[in-house]
Amino acid sequence: MVKYDVLIIGAGIVGLSTAYHLKMLDPKLNVIVVEKKSSPGQGETGKAPGGFRLDVWTSKTNLSLGRSSIMFYRHIQEDLKIDLGMKWVGYLFMMDNGLYETAKPALNKMDSMGVKYRIYSKEDLARNLNVNVNVLDEEAKSMNLRNIDVGLMFPNAGYWRQENMVKFYEMEFIRMNGKILYNTFTSRIITGPRIEFNIPNEPHIWQEVIAKGALTDKGFIEANEIVVAASAWAPQILDSIGIDCHFKPKKRQVFIVKANTEPLKQVMFAKGFNKLNAAPFLFIYVRGESWLWMKPDIGELAYWIGCSDHLGRAYGVVEDDPPAEENFYKYGIYQVLVKYFPQFINVYPSNSHAGYYDISIDGLPIVHKESNITVVGGTSGNGLSKADALGRITAATCLNREYAELYGGEKFKVSDLSIVNRNIDKEIFII
Amino acid sequence: MVKYDVLIIGAGIVGLSTAYHLKMLDPKLNVIVVEKKSSPGQGETGKAPGGFRLDVWTSKTNLSLGRSSIMFYRHIQEDLKIDLGMKWVGYLFMMDNGLYETAKPALNKMDSMGVKYRIYSKEDLARNLNVNVNVLDEEAKSMNLRNIDVGLMFPNAGYWRQENMVKFYEMEFIRMNGKILYNTFTSRIITGPRIEFNIPNEPHIWQEVIAKGALTDKGFIEANEIVVAASAWAPQILDSIGIDCHFKPKKRQVFIVKANTEPLKQVMFAKGFNKLNAAPFLFIYVRGESWLWMKPDIGELAYWIGCSDHLGRAYGVVEDDPPAEENFYKYGIYQVLVKYFPQFINVYPSNSHAGYYDISIDGLPIVHKESNITVVGGTSGNGLSKADALGRITAATCLNREYAELYGGEKFKVSDLSIVNRNIDKEIFII
Repeated sequence: MVKYDVLIIGAGIVGLSTAYHLKMLDPKLNVIVVEKKSSPGQGETGKAPGGFRLDVWTSKTNLSLGRSSIMFYRHIQEDLKIDLGMKWVGYLFMMDNGLYETAKPALNKMDSMGVKYRIYSKEDLARNLNVNVNVLDEEAKSMNLRNIDVGLMFPNAGYWRQENMVKFYEMEFIRMNGKILYNTFTSRIITGPRIEFNIPNEPHIWQEVIAKGALTDKGFIEANEIVVAASAWAPQILDSIGIDCHFKPKKRQVFIVKANTEPLKQVMFAKGFNKLNAAPFLFIYVRGESWLWMKPDIGELAYWIGCSDHLGRAYGVVEDDPPAEENFYKYGIYQVLVKYFPQFINVYPSNSHAGYYDISIDGLPIVHKESNITVVGGTSGNGLSKADALGRITAATCLNREYAELYGGEKFKVSDLSIVNRNIDKEIFII
Repeated sequence: MVKYDVLIIGAGIVGLSTAYHLKMLDPKLNVIVVEKKSSPGQGETGKAPGGFRLDVWTSKTNLSLGRSSIMFYRHIQEDLKIDLGMKWVGYLFMMDNGLYETAKPALNKMDSMGVKYRIYSKEDLARNLNVNVNVLDEEAKSMNLRNIDVGLMFPNAGYWRQENMVKFYEMEFIRMNGKILYNTFTSRIITGPRIEFNIPNEPHIWQEVIAKGALTDKGFIEANEIVVAASAWAPQILDSIGIDCHFKPKKRQVFIVKANTEPLKQVMFAKGFNKLNAAPFLFIYVRGESWLWMKPDIGELAYWIGCSDHLGRAYGVVEDDPPAEENFYKYGIYQVLVKYFPQFINVYPSNSHAGYYDISIDGLPIVHKESNITVVGGTSGNGLSKADALGRITAATCLNREYAELYGGEKFKVSDLSIVNRNIDKEIFII
């Protein structure tokens, strides 16, 4: 039986980025990726809203991960001419003056970190975007909605095609003789004592425990190192061997509304925000930690729309292809959306899907190694924007290196994202 | 139907400490505690090893919690003459020179924090404790055991009767007209919109969500505020409403060996460590993060013995009264123990039990509030020693106060233990 150097569980963007960077670090490594779906990026990656941001963060850690990753992807798109569908339309956050005031400390920190943004007045927004900035009729008041006073525009952001990103990593990994098994479900990681004494109930407290490999529906795969990049499915794999991945998956929903009326197209091709003359990726504040987001995709001529819900939305129920809920749009999103964009009145989604997000306790990714098992997770919240750096850091962690070299040359201390020696700069701009 | 001001789920030490301090802060509060067991402290509290430490920490946060709590319990025992069974025998950590070197930074920090400790030579230990300090025969070598070169003795520690502690809080709480329902199982917390619109699938993204109360097998209990102090059982209660408690329960086992031979009594009544002429609470380093611990209980004339296992021990399986595993002692603990204490050869446990520990990502407790639900957890690892402070902080958090006053007068900013504004001093002395 082949014993692989590294077995990676999960062919999402992070698993494949890790696979690619392992081979880049050491081309002789015998690396295998196993994935239960039939193609790459079908889990959290494919279900994500598809936005990217180079620098819409305050955290030094996030900025290192995001800037280097986005510069790498821009290099692929612009220098290597591999189309990732990157559209630099910007991110636009719309809010009232009250919320804008509370964002000031974050904006001050962004100033000091060189993050670029522009402020739009409500008059600008009303004119350029055809957004209704004064929403406070009786109904909107009873819904606790807020007027829009300010637009906060970050130009170094946009959306892309994450399916092209995973394809890039997949093809390059295979070109370097990496192996991928699709349609292969991992039921568990098999652990045992490093040195077997053949006594009952091994391993015991005095024995070193390691992972021997993974049991899949295609048989046992033996490996010296294991990387778990299974996002929402990580707890299923890790709980049974007693590793806490430190995140729980929560369902998130995406509704796709076609821009097939003139007013909807007019919003989509808004002028005054970017060179593409397209609406930015839009965020409207709702309440608590919830923002309504809208990706006006000029390629698809469709809006992707969603809003995270929090308290009351259960953890722990993970389905392969969870459905979106019609009433979540009808009584939730729609009711808010039409107050700001009456263009959406009587327009309903042509399509919808749902996935999961997983967020760590401090909102930053975790790359943790226990024995010979490396776990990467907690990547939701523009995780795609950090995927290249995360692959490098996960690969370096797996190979027991102290530093990962990010694109552009920054040396990143991998233990900064670990659990035991975690050393992150907290994010204070939380969307 | 009565609507309570506060409903507390869990009558362990933390739940009851919270109940007591809520009434101390505001005697008019109508507080109810629900507990599935028939008496207090039957979950993690009762299954804990029962050690306490006033100051065996490096973390400023732990020292605030621990010192104030232990001083409070000493006040109860010595001034109020309520016997908590506190025995100040000290904690003694035994290790080789290699590990001692790695502990130096922690000891230096302890020096600066005024934590008292003494060093014992291996000769002292061999003489006073009858411990075998040179264990490296062929078998011990193959087990990767280490000699004992150094004993690190912390006098401000010992063991107690946690059942007396919960009794104290329970009685005082009832005396202040607090209500406790035993044998009452909470199946779930019921959440809903603060303001009901009577539309399908409420609450929606624009609605504020609150807990209305808890569904128990004795009926629905309505409350304005809910405190979840359910330790290992918290995820069962919180996952379904989408609150991440940020810890997972892991099984831990306790084996009780009677000191009914002369050599075993001789170890137990070791001289030279404390005024009681009793052996300290003992810790012998095994490997990784694992220490073999032994509580030589001079009241019971029995040793409580255990050792945490890590990788390979599953998370997520929570039973009401999990059994200890005979082979865990026989092939694990016993094999290590008899190398250092041959007095235990051919002696086996007369009794055993198991419970759960729950530890947060940074090892410090979490007191987190989301809407009107306060969650306290991640308290394992001498959590009993911090229970009074945790009750005060949880009570203050529940009542939306910014500070909790700890015993002795320290004002503790409650958000320091929260998730969003977490601000803790990391513990670097990890046992």
